[in-house]
Amino acid sequence: MADLDTSPDDHVTVGDDWSKGLILTVRSPDRVGIVASLASSIQAAGGNIVELDQHADVVEGDFGCRVEVAEGVDALELARRLDVIQSSLPMIYTMTPIARRRSRAAVLCSSTLHCPSDLIARSAIGQLDCEVIALVSDRTAARELAQRYGVPFTHLPVGEDRAEQERQLGDVLDELDPDLIVLARYMRVLPAWLVLRYEQRIINIHHSFLPAFVGSNPYARAHERGVKIIGATAHYVTADLDAGPIIAQDVVHISHRDDVAGMTRRGADIERSVLATAIRLHLEQRVIVFGSRTCVFD
Amino acid sequence: MADLDTSPDDHVTVGDDWSKGLILTVRSPDRVGIVASLASSIQAAGGNIVELDQHADVVEGDFGCRVEVAEGVDALELARRLDVIQSSLPMIYTMTPIARRRSRAAVLCSSTLHCPSDLIARSAIGQLDCEVIALVSDRTAARELAQRYGVPFTHLPVGEDRAEQERQLGDVLDELDPDLIVLARYMRVLPAWLVLRYEQRIINIHHSFLPAFVGSNPYARAHERGVKIIGATAHYVTADLDAGPIIAQDVVHISHRDDVAGMTRRGADIERSVLATAIRLHLEQRVIVFGSRTCVFD
Amino acid sequence: MADLDTSPDDHVTVGDDWSKGLILTVRSPDRVGIVASLASSIQAAGGNIVELDQHADVVEGDFGCRVEVAEGVDALELARRLDVIQSSLPMIYTMTPIARRRSRAAVLCSSTLHCPSDLIARSAIGQLDCEVIALVSDRTAARELAQRYGVPFTHLPVGEDRAEQERQLGDVLDELDPDLIVLARYMRVLPAWLVLRYEQRIINIHHSFLPAFVGSNPYARAHERGVKIIGATAHYVTADLDAGPIIAQDVVHISHRDDVAGMTRRGADIERSVLATAIRLHLEQRVIVFGSRTCVFD
Amino acid sequence: MADLDTSPDDHVTVGDDWSKGLILTVRSPDRVGIVASLASSIQAAGGNIVELDQHADVVEGDFGCRVEVAEGVDALELARRLDVIQSSLPMIYTMTPIARRRSRAAVLCSSTLHCPSDLIARSAIGQLDCEVIALVSDRTAARELAQRYGVPFTHLPVGEDRAEQERQLGDVLDELDPDLIVLARYMRVLPAWLVLRYEQRIINIHHSFLPAFVGSNPYARAHERGVKIIGATAHYVTADLDAGPIIAQDVVHISHRDDVAGMTRRGADIERSVLATAIRLHLEQRVIVFGSRTCVFD
Repeated sequence: MADLDTSPDDHVTVGDDWSKGLILTVRSPDRVGIVASLASSIQAAGGNIVELDQHADVVEGDFGCRVEVAEGVDALELARRLDVIQSSLPMIYTMTPIARRRSRAAVLCSSTLHCPSDLIARSAIGQLDCEVIALVSDRTAARELAQRYGVPFTHLPVGEDRAEQERQLGDVLDELDPDLIVLARYMRVLPAWLVLRYEQRIINIHHSFLPAFVGSNPYARAHERGVKIIGATAHYVTADLDAGPIIAQDVVHISHRDDVAGMTRRGADIERSVLATAIRLHLEQRVIVFGSRTCVFD
Repeated sequence: MADLDTSPDDHVTVGDDWSKGLILTVRSPDRVGIVASLASSIQAAGGNIVELDQHADVVEGDFGCRVEVAEGVDALELARRLDVIQSSLPMIYTMTPIARRRSRAAVLCSSTLHCPSDLIARSAIGQLDCEVIALVSDRTAARELAQRYGVPFTHLPVGEDRAEQERQLGDVLDELDPDLIVLARYMRVLPAWLVLRYEQRIINIHHSFLPAFVGSNPYARAHERGVKIIGATAHYVTADLDAGPIIAQDVVHISHRDDVAGMTRRGADIERSVLATAIRLHLEQRVIVFGSRTCVFD
Repeated sequence: MADLDTSPDDHVTVGDDWSKGLILTVRSPDRVGIVASLASSIQAAGGNIVELDQHADVVEGDFGCRVEVAEGVDALELARRLDVIQSSLPMIYTMTPIARRRSRAAVLCSSTLHCPSDLIARSAIGQLDCEVIALVSDRTAARELAQRYGVPFTHLPVGEDRAEQERQLGDVLDELDPDLIVLARYMRVLPAWLVLRYEQRIINIHHSFLPAFVGSNPYARAHERGVKIIGATAHYVTADLDAGPIIAQDVVHISHRDDVAGMTRRGADIERSVLATAIRLHLEQRVIVFGSRTCVFD
Repeated sequence: MADLDTSPDDHVTVGDDWSKGLILTVRSPDRVGIVASLASSIQAAGGNIVELDQHADVVEGDFGCRVEVAEGVDALELARRLDVIQSSLPMIYTMTPIARRRSRAAVLCSSTLHCPSDLIARSAIGQLDCEVIALVSDRTAARELAQRYGVPFTHLPVGEDRAEQERQLGDVLDELDPDLIVLARYMRVLPAWLVLRYEQRIINIHHSFLPAFVGSNPYARAHERGVKIIGATAHYVTADLDAGPIIAQDVVHISHRDDVAGMTRRGADIERSVLATAIRLHLEQRVIVFGSRTCVFD
């Protein structure tokens, strides 16, 4: 998942603003004393722990940790000390300045607009913690939405050559260089090479309570089955359709009176909020992936 | 589902106590004027409508209705008038005296006791609206529970001949003649002939949010998949495993901290309340089955 | 609430388009046979009942009913027949063509923008069932939002003379002649005369689970009290602050980690969806007010 | 809240079984390096951190922490090291062996039995993590319940002298020496002296979503107000009625169809599960009280 042969310079770049403190995330095999080592390193680097969350999966032997460190910490010193720990433990860590620039998200969508509309409207009033830098779509329905908010819109229709559209999409995304890619009801499966390129940086909203109703038309299938609750799932995209690590889920009760259209309407509210929640959790570095599962420190 | 060639006598038996009114349920193809016909019939029989719920599935062309009729209605007269309607419409109806005797439920379980324990404890304090007339189990774990409450316990172990145990179970149930059979974490699949014998009178609790995790070990599979919500489903038993019409579902949020044991514990609370809710809905004649789906008038 | 001395002409206006059927709502004292009378009237007017919901409050003696009648009904004939019923029963009814024009809502807000932003964004993609015809505010924060969507913005600052601003607001609303007024986090109490003028047509979103935390700063007070759940309430506005009939409520679980800012953020999601839900219920004629309570036929 | 002049012997008693590890809870003013100090102390005492939860309330300057330490820790050594920290910081800590005896709870109730019935039934099947050592009531309704489970029942009727009954109750509780007192719908206010005697060891279930509907008849008042959601709250008992620190809350949606009886029935399910949850959280040392609020590390 990451190159373990790192140096402090990989984590502390010239120009980073550490003046407001930082968020440290750690993922490693579970070892005796690891929390003490981390806490001591932070203290030795002049940092105070504001919030520490950790989880040890005793069955799998995985350890994950998220620490908010207050202002005053010497980031380079902390990275040096963590690299010492790393020399004897296959640990992966990230350090993120709290005073970092706002994250930049590329949003992909098709013809269903409530998710991209909600994201872009939240972003405009400062309730998403990221900037929507582009709307990219295989359809044109979102063009007006993008224009309202002055967001660049890229139309990538799929013609006879599906692979060609995927290459174009890859080029567009490379150009944008986003921190995060959001599939906001984008009704196409991304090619594996593109998923790998942005591993754990692509979030999809699926309009069902996964693993129920994987694939297309989940509301129609939910109606067919006669369920009394419908849901939405936000997850990291992997090569397996709808099988990536789940970040957030929520549900809403329905009744026999809800036909497919009614489910679609009620579900839309859940999709909106679950997707926005997952993006927030990701941007605040609250999600640590353990294989096919996530730790969410919220 | 029922013999349509009925007479008023099929619905009004000597000894029924109609003095406190009745609950009428109707299931038929959707026709113009059916609600007016039913309402007029009730009025003509001296009844006042306390609560009327109806649902027309316009896609399938199904109609369902539940009416609470206040005291003063002439039940025999109502049945006569409904039979007239029935002569030109393939309508199925039930009439249940509000002053009927308490329903009698046979509860089947295995070694997991929270569901049968909850049902029997609720019944003892009058919060289930039915009497648990027997605990029947392929294991012995529930014996002490049954004894505490003075409920007959029948142990039907499965030996080499599984069919033999099923025949015994059929005999025990025939002897009990229950209004309702509850599979309260009974870990065996009932044979098709037994399911048919008690059609729409067997309620099962499944410890997942169906259709996710059909079958065994749903909590282990939910943990494996890394879901953030778990659920429970109460449904009528049909010949297809975990595919019967759903009566009630509920869910609870979990986190990465919940291992399989934690999910099992949290899920138990939901199973308890969903099963008790489904039994109440069934006993109050609030569930009408449309094919593989239910209308729940609650 | 309404002049009972009505004529069919009060309910059926030249130019109404009844071709797709209608929604009938009725509110009256509870009487024997009222459902039958209504159902017979509908049938006699050539109408078929698609959905009928009714509720009788047996303690208060109130009756409420909502009926969706399919295309083919003769609206004038139905109104004539209902007026006959009305001659012997103090019944209030409304008839709304399903093919009516889209409702027109005036949205009032202050500096907090997530509710007006959500409403206007939903309306723009056809997920609110009404048009936002104006944003009116005592502040200027919403001006940019209004401009994005081409919605007229009226700034009504409060100077030394509060009553003057209220008069201006009344004039603006009279000019707009909205079907519905939405207080989308408008941080002022409307004067009683204005509330009366738009009785049961003003919906407010309050950012607490009423009746907990009536008044200002509910999240701060929720934090102070240490609650584990916060909520939002949409209600009709009456002369009593935060005491009007409740249309919809929802809640979200929080933890000790949520400070006031965290509660505010989480609560915003609930406010959005509760307000949109209440508006939908109101516009679909699903809310009938019984004194200080509502029947919501959803 | 506690005598800060402690010694290791106050925390480590002869006979304690520390072989399976321990749970450490800490409450103190927030200080730089406190997590590092605790983690180092645990490591130095041979312990490994399985789970660490901490929370710093930056506004109030409070710090709370809960640590599960695996087997192998030297409890006496840990207590010595913690006492060193304590010499310079007004820190309160508890150490609880994971292999401790099952906790002992005294349950108080009146005539409403679903809460005591649920607790006693859960305890009997090992789903409560404590033993119900006594049922104490001002009424006789629970006698049969107690007898079913072989639990001692004490009837303390209130005669003309209310204070006399309270003295008897104090004597009964002193005799029982419970780890925990549960007010399971006990319809009397405990005297202040009794509350103080068992500070943070008395849990009450209140049948509303506090702070809404403090005091008696919350369901009737919820119905009067026309709320769409009802709730239940489990909290530590303090001298102020229904104002103690909240441990757990949950809610359920209702409709206009739910009269007071319906609310009471639906609410009962929530009361059951909220009370059981709060007891579990308390027994697992997951609740740390910060003034009028709680941290719940779940």
